[in-house]
Amino acid sequence: MKYVRFRDPAGAVRRGEYETGTVHFANESYDLENDAIDVLAPCDPSKIVCIGRNYADHADEMGSDVPDRPLLFLKGPNAVASHGDTVTVPAGKDRIDYEAELGVVIGEQCRHVPEDRAMEVVEGFTCVNDISNRDDQRQEQNWIRGKAFDGAAPLGPVLATPDEVPADASVQSRVNGERKQDGSREQLIFPIPELIAEITTYMTLERGDVIATGTPEGVGPLSDGDTVEIEVEGVGTLEHTVRIP
Amino acid sequence: MKYVRFRDPAGAVRRGEYETGTVHFANESYDLENDAIDVLAPCDPSKIVCIGRNYADHADEMGSDVPDRPLLFLKGPNAVASHGDTVTVPAGKDRIDYEAELGVVIGEQCRHVPEDRAMEVVEGFTCVNDISNRDDQRQEQNWIRGKAFDGAAPLGPVLATPDEVPADASVQSRVNGERKQDGSREQLIFPIPELIAEITTYMTLERGDVIATGTPEGVGPLSDGDTVEIEVEGVGTLEHTVRIP
Repeated sequence: MKYVRFRDPAGAVRRGEYETGTVHFANESYDLENDAIDVLAPCDPSKIVCIGRNYADHADEMGSDVPDRPLLFLKGPNAVASHGDTVTVPAGKDRIDYEAELGVVIGEQCRHVPEDRAMEVVEGFTCVNDISNRDDQRQEQNWIRGKAFDGAAPLGPVLATPDEVPADASVQSRVNGERKQDGSREQLIFPIPELIAEITTYMTLERGDVIATGTPEGVGPLSDGDTVEIEVEGVGTLEHTVRIP
Repeated sequence: MKYVRFRDPAGAVRRGEYETGTVHFANESYDLENDAIDVLAPCDPSKIVCIGRNYADHADEMGSDVPDRPLLFLKGPNAVASHGDTVTVPAGKDRIDYEAELGVVIGEQCRHVPEDRAMEVVEGFTCVNDISNRDDQRQEQNWIRGKAFDGAAPLGPVLATPDEVPADASVQSRVNGERKQDGSREQLIFPIPELIAEITTYMTLERGDVIATGTPEGVGPLSDGDTVEIEVEGVGTLEHTVRIP
């Protein structure tokens, strides 16, 4: 199953079933790209737990070692942005990068989840752009100005249940139509069950929380007006534009 | 004015006025330490923005330099704990520390707030214990296992409006009744208006969000069963116990 959360023409928030470009709720159907609905992030996370350097080739392109346990960082709800949004990034920076990621949407409140039961707490998968302000990220102990600014985590538009997404699903980005990243879920250094077990050793995950599982190689800078697409095989394509004030 | 948020004997969440040990709501009065009410954190933050090394003597005791701009890190809503709670910290660590802090509670949604208007978005002040798991903090790029675990931010019990809290308010901790830290708001390297201006350059603060302004020197380890008190002059005293599983 695939779902899209949206604000309908009357202003009510709904979650409809999604099928080949169309969102169905009750007796109504809407085109996903139709102006009549406002596509929202597929969930309303209390926090987004992100994983750094979870693809070996990306750690390498950043001049970093592969970590010996998951490198965790946080984005707050202020970072959420949606399909079709124009994301205004921090002003006056030399380099703001896209980072295509597979997002895991948590389906129930959980803590101390063992690896072999971790998939039971997953509602589904979505697309994430982990937008990164490298100027500040490189100077900070904790990546707050670098990674947790308003709009730094566009999500969606589709939440796909786990059965929709192959074990080797591709994770890709395009900027203005040009392919930039092309990785696979199989390349994750720490696979999803291990991430859930490790995170929930320390913190409770809530329904709607998101784990952004890391980005493959090929990250690069964004310019004012760019259109970014993040595509996860079996999920769909998140598209948004970028504004550099 | 001073306020305390609590669950009343019928289970309803209320915010009452606080006066010398007593909480008043409508026609009822409750003793703060009375079992009839369940004292809650004074607000319901979407995020807690914390400041590291904001007292020179604490940076020194940690063997760190004073930063040239505020060192920011995040705790999610999972970190909130309340007055009277028993906080269960991560198991199997060598050193979990208390850190007494003055907490700033935000009163309205805001972004790009200039320093000279920053106090307009402050609803009041509270007490915070920025509980820190040093084992992991020392190993992490971002302080997630170290600082963002469940219960890592006991808050409260009182929210005091800014007029109640002197410019040189003391910020103290006691463990099992013994004084450990004794700093002053005057010692903040980056004062509150500067913190608000810097944070809101990058992120929107919501009503109820908390800024934990940093801790003075004298941090130290906690043991299973310890009682911690955090006292901020003009606000009151937050007390909780610690469980190390």
